[in-house]
Amino acid sequence: MLDCAIIGGGPAGLTAGLYTTRGGLANVVMYEKGMPGGQITQSSEIENYPGVTGEITGMELMMPWPEQCQRFGLKHEMVEVTRVSKSESGHFLIHKLDGTTEEALSVIVGTGSTPKKAGFVGEETFFGRGVSTCATCDGFFYKGKEVAVVGGGDTALEEALYLAKICAKVYLIHRREQFRAAPNTIERVKNSGNIELVLNAVPEEVYGDKMGVTGIRVKFQDGSTRNIDVPGVFTFVGYNVNNEVLKQDDGSFLCEVNAWGEVVVDISMRTNVHGLFAVGDMRIAAPKQVVCAAGDGATAALQAIAYVDEILNG
Amino acid sequence: MLDCAIIGGGPAGLTAGLYTTRGGLANVVMYEKGMPGGQITQSSEIENYPGVTGEITGMELMMPWPEQCQRFGLKHEMVEVTRVSKSESGHFLIHKLDGTTEEALSVIVGTGSTPKKAGFVGEETFFGRGVSTCATCDGFFYKGKEVAVVGGGDTALEEALYLAKICAKVYLIHRREQFRAAPNTIERVKNSGNIELVLNAVPEEVYGDKMGVTGIRVKFQDGSTRNIDVPGVFTFVGYNVNNEVLKQDDGSFLCEVNAWGEVVVDISMRTNVHGLFAVGDMRIAAPKQVVCAAGDGATAALQAIAYVDEILNG
Repeated sequence: MLDCAIIGGGPAGLTAGLYTTRGGLANVVMYEKGMPGGQITQSSEIENYPGVTGEITGMELMMPWPEQCQRFGLKHEMVEVTRVSKSESGHFLIHKLDGTTEEALSVIVGTGSTPKKAGFVGEETFFGRGVSTCATCDGFFYKGKEVAVVGGGDTALEEALYLAKICAKVYLIHRREQFRAAPNTIERVKNSGNIELVLNAVPEEVYGDKMGVTGIRVKFQDGSTRNIDVPGVFTFVGYNVNNEVLKQDDGSFLCEVNAWGEVVVDISMRTNVHGLFAVGDMRIAAPKQVVCAAGDGATAALQAIAYVDEILNG
Repeated sequence: MLDCAIIGGGPAGLTAGLYTTRGGLANVVMYEKGMPGGQITQSSEIENYPGVTGEITGMELMMPWPEQCQRFGLKHEMVEVTRVSKSESGHFLIHKLDGTTEEALSVIVGTGSTPKKAGFVGEETFFGRGVSTCATCDGFFYKGKEVAVVGGGDTALEEALYLAKICAKVYLIHRREQFRAAPNTIERVKNSGNIELVLNAVPEEVYGDKMGVTGIRVKFQDGSTRNIDVPGVFTFVGYNVNNEVLKQDDGSFLCEVNAWGEVVVDISMRTNVHGLFAVGDMRIAAPKQVVCAAGDGATAALQAIAYVDEILNG
C-alpha cells in the first residue's frame, strides 16, 4: 500500500514528491513514463521562475529538480498510468499500462494539459523558436515587436490583449468573421488600438530561417493570401486537459471536472473526493506557470500528509 | 496613477512585481520599508524550494530575486504603507507613513504573518538555530531525533503530528491540562505512539551551545522543573496576520477577512473587492512556503493585468 501515488512528473508532481517525502510519508511513487520535467522542458527560454536567473532553457531550469525532489525517498516508476479508481477498501487503485495495479491511500494527479495544434505548415518545426502557445511565458521576448495570434475564442482574445500591452502590434488571425468570446472581451480587443483583425483567414504556413520564425502566410475565403512578417506566432485554438487517468469504465470521472474537463479543486487543491488532489495545468483556473504548478504540488502534498495521518490514526 | 501597487516585498510581492511588469503593466511600485526578501531571509537553511539546491540559507535563496524581479521595470519604494483605502474615483489610495498618498488602479497585498513569541529565555537568541516556528520548513532537519513542541491549539497539535512522522519522539509542552483543538486531532495525537504529553508545564528557558539548542527547561504548576534534552524546539502559540494596511479609519477591513484576520481569497487570489488581491502568508489556507507564496504572486499578477486592462479598455 502506497502512502501517496503521484501521477505526472512535471513541476507540480515533482514538488508534490519533495514535500510528501520530506514531510514523512514513507512510501511515495511518482508515475511518469518519460523523463521528469514536464512541458516546460520544450521551452527554449525561461526567465520568470523566481530565484533562477540567467539565459536558460526550460530543460536547464528543470535539470536539478528530479535529484532534489527524490533525495527524501520519492520513487519514480517509468510506467504509464491508465486509470485511477476507488479500491474495494475505499482507498485508491492505480492501474498501470502493463496490467498491474497498486493500491494507494492518497493520490495527487498532475498530468497537465496539451495545447491543440492549429494545423499549419511549420507549426512543429518552429515550436519554441517563434511559435508559442503561452503569452505569459513568451510574450515579453517580443517586446516592442509585432506578433500574430491565431484563434478566435476567449483565450485567444485575452492572450491577444495581454500581448498588445507588450508588443508594438498584434495581428489577430481568425477563420471566421465573428469571435466566439465574451462581448466585453471583444470590445476591449476592438478598443485596444494596436490589434489588427485578420478575419476569414486560415493560417497556411509559418516561415522562417535558422534563427526562427520570420512570418506567417494566411489564406482568405476568397482564395487570396497575405504574408504577415512577424517574429512570433501565438496559437490559441484550445487545449486538451490530460484527464484520461480520471476516466472510469463507465465514462464518468472519478471526481468533479468542469465543462472543459479541468479538475475542480478548492484553494488547497482538494477535489470533491477525499484523498484525491489535482495540481498544475489540469486544474481549474490554472495560471499555467512553473512556479504556480510547483506551489500547487507543495500545497497538495501538505494536505495529503494530513489526510493520510487522519485515516491511519484518526 | 499607478497601474498596480504591491504592498510587501517577500517572495509573493517580488513575484507579483516580476509578473505584472513583464506582463506589460507600466507603472508598478512595490512598497517594502526594509530589504526585499521577506521572513525566509531569517532562515538558516532551506532545501525545499524546487530548482535551487545545495546547503543554502534563506538569505542566499532570496539573493537573486530583487534584481530578477525588478529588471522589467518594477520600482521599489522603501517606505511603510500605513493603509490602503478606496479613492473617490473608485480606485485605491495608498497611504504612506510620511503622510503622502498614491493612487492605484489595482493593489496586491502580501504583508505576511508573524508568529507570536512563546516568551521564554533564549527564544530570540536561538531562533533559526534550533528554535523554529515552521514544522514543514525545518522538521526534516531533525529526522530521527527528538524535538519539543510548545503550544496546545489546533496548529500546535497538527504540527506535532507532522513532526511525529519524521522525528523519533515529540514532547508536546502545554501550559494547561486540556488542549483547545479539534477532538479528532487530539485523538490522533494520543494515538500517534511517539508524542509524549508534557502538560501543565510552562517553558522557562531554551538552552544550548554555539552549535544551537540542546534542550528546554519547563516548569510545572507545582513548582518543579524538568530539563528535556532536544536539539529542536518548535513553538506554535499563534500568529499575527499583518493585515493592518487593510484596516480602515472606522476599524473595519477594506475586504473580507476571517476570524483569524486572514484575507479571504478565491483560487485566483481575488478578494471580495475588485482589483484588490491578497497573496502569501496573510491569506486563508496559506501553506506558508516560499514556492507557494511565489505562485500566489504570479497568480495575482495575471489577474491584476486583466483587471487593469478591463477598467482601461472595457
